[in-house]
Amino acid sequence: MDHKARQQSLQETLSAHRLDALLVTHLPNVRYLCGFSGSAGVLLVTGARSVFFTDGRYTDQARAEVQAARIVITRKGPLAAAAVWLSQHLKPGRGASASRVKIGIEGEHLTVAARSRLTGVLPPSIRLGEAPPLVEQARMVKDEQEIESIRSAVLLGASLFDRALETIRPGVLETEVAAEMEYAARTAGAQAMSFDTIIASGERSALPHGRASRTAIPVQGFVVCDFGVILSGYCSDMTRTVHVGRASAEGRRVYQAVKQAQQAGVDAVRPGISVGEVDQAARKSLQKSGLAKYFTHSAGHGVGLEIHEAPRLAAGQSEILQPGMVITIEPGVYIPDKWGVRIEDMVVVTEQGCEILTPTSKELVEI
Amino acid sequence: MDHKARQQSLQETLSAHRLDALLVTHLPNVRYLCGFSGSAGVLLVTGARSVFFTDGRYTDQARAEVQAARIVITRKGPLAAAAVWLSQHLKPGRGASASRVKIGIEGEHLTVAARSRLTGVLPPSIRLGEAPPLVEQARMVKDEQEIESIRSAVLLGASLFDRALETIRPGVLETEVAAEMEYAARTAGAQAMSFDTIIASGERSALPHGRASRTAIPVQGFVVCDFGVILSGYCSDMTRTVHVGRASAEGRRVYQAVKQAQQAGVDAVRPGISVGEVDQAARKSLQKSGLAKYFTHSAGHGVGLEIHEAPRLAAGQSEILQPGMVITIEPGVYIPDKWGVRIEDMVVVTEQGCEILTPTSKELVEI
Repeated sequence: MDHKARQQSLQETLSAHRLDALLVTHLPNVRYLCGFSGSAGVLLVTGARSVFFTDGRYTDQARAEVQAARIVITRKGPLAAAAVWLSQHLKPGRGASASRVKIGIEGEHLTVAARSRLTGVLPPSIRLGEAPPLVEQARMVKDEQEIESIRSAVLLGASLFDRALETIRPGVLETEVAAEMEYAARTAGAQAMSFDTIIASGERSALPHGRASRTAIPVQGFVVCDFGVILSGYCSDMTRTVHVGRASAEGRRVYQAVKQAQQAGVDAVRPGISVGEVDQAARKSLQKSGLAKYFTHSAGHGVGLEIHEAPRLAAGQSEILQPGMVITIEPGVYIPDKWGVRIEDMVVVTEQGCEILTPTSKELVEI
Repeated sequence: MDHKARQQSLQETLSAHRLDALLVTHLPNVRYLCGFSGSAGVLLVTGARSVFFTDGRYTDQARAEVQAARIVITRKGPLAAAAVWLSQHLKPGRGASASRVKIGIEGEHLTVAARSRLTGVLPPSIRLGEAPPLVEQARMVKDEQEIESIRSAVLLGASLFDRALETIRPGVLETEVAAEMEYAARTAGAQAMSFDTIIASGERSALPHGRASRTAIPVQGFVVCDFGVILSGYCSDMTRTVHVGRASAEGRRVYQAVKQAQQAGVDAVRPGISVGEVDQAARKSLQKSGLAKYFTHSAGHGVGLEIHEAPRLAAGQSEILQPGMVITIEPGVYIPDKWGVRIEDMVVVTEQGCEILTPTSKELVEI
């Protein structure tokens, strides 16, 4: 990963936003910019240099990981140390504006209390202001190395579905299915699951977020399996819905409708189209079968260092797809108190359209 | 859990802080007050009533879980819905102050951006202000039911150490040890691990936060095992350090010193003493063996719905222990580039002193 180039490209945008520096407090952004993967650290990027602040627990890790930034190890907490550094190094007249220094903060990733503490120690000549999500915007388009990392995570993630197919049987607890998958993930080298594994069987399949519970898989019914891993920092995310026993005619019809909607979403993906249009394509496909009202969430989201990141594929969102974006396409139909079906792939936007990263068949599996 | 009583006790403190309401955005606080365990929800507690806001994904869950609060399902996000409700229901003249309404926010658990959005939609007569951590303070002292829940989590957590002992062998990867423990946790009914499992072997044992890595357990050396589970929402946390092969005389000396320091910490725990004094007791014990300089973190922390919660057992902290508080006692010695030892129990403060919840022996185990 070329961390230096990432920081430079950020530095070039600072003055356009009338910022003398950006205080990066969102850890995935810190990692993206300088490589640090620990759980406490702040990166300050000024027009000319970068300084990384962490505490004594991370001395060795910071030295091993941090690229293109000076490292400051502090006893008082990274944010307080950044404030001290700012007070000492950024004086009015040196920065973008002559009389005042303006530091951008990540409003979505700094608490009100942390901001109060910062303001309390900074001199009046240094002003804080909410910056646009500059790093999130940069992160939307993945470089080749990132796409390779994501590809590896997706393949490892997909391999867990085989364990699910081996384990799902009437009477087995949903958590047992999750346990087998998570064990397989760990032994295959995953750092962690990218979110709480969803195994939602029978009526629970109608819950879009049915984390594996102590419910036993019923003799008959759908089982939604939504899961992912983190490998070398990058996340995977996929959903397949299987049926225990033979699916009813209605079950099959709904499954096929979701599968078609998912394909319609995938088919819509290409550079220049808005994310809202992709959502619309999946939704329209479900309208034909009268099921759109049961599709109660958005069609997908970006995936990378975070399991949910920009862009969000939802109605009305205007972000334009670009080559290198990695997104999920995941329509679902949830019939309350009855059952639900969701199918989800990860795709990478290419010059012509997209490449589906998830290698797993989407044909209905009956167990 | 008597959620109504918890809310009432909070309501009684509001006027003392000149607040007309508290906007509870920290999910563990939401869960503590009304029982909701999902991942998106806001609880507004006024002097007279409570209203819970969530989105359509959680309709069923909210109805099943939420106690003693009106439920509002919204399409626009819980925080925005709370703002609308506030604008409509809290008018000046009705609340604690005649001309203005003051809503407390949780400064440590609300982002700068969320606050801006709130301020943007609230009428000027409604003012937001950072409230003290009222719910965190209440949560420090656990009731009997909570202590039973924690006890169950601690016992399940402790059972994983047997899996660790069976698995730790030279050549086995740290992640394989973690995988076995996490699998055992899942199959025994744990919802999740309470934090990333730490298996830090050989030189890595000198890292206070050595998450299980792809490092193979060496033929000889310490292995720090720090792990916990979440069961019915409550966390467990324990550390044991074992030695692969026979420990050196120095290794034994350090192990015994940490064990004594841990005991000194436990012995210091009683109602009326400050948390800083407990930290001091453990630190003083290590001073005798000249190892205090290698004890680089604080002596412990509260545990409950969160793995780290108030109080923090650190030098200079003045919180006074009370019966019902549940805390860890976890001194450690970390000799850089060499090895480390940490021993950690969870204890509950009783009328006379404390009860150790962690049932596991602290004698040095050589594998």
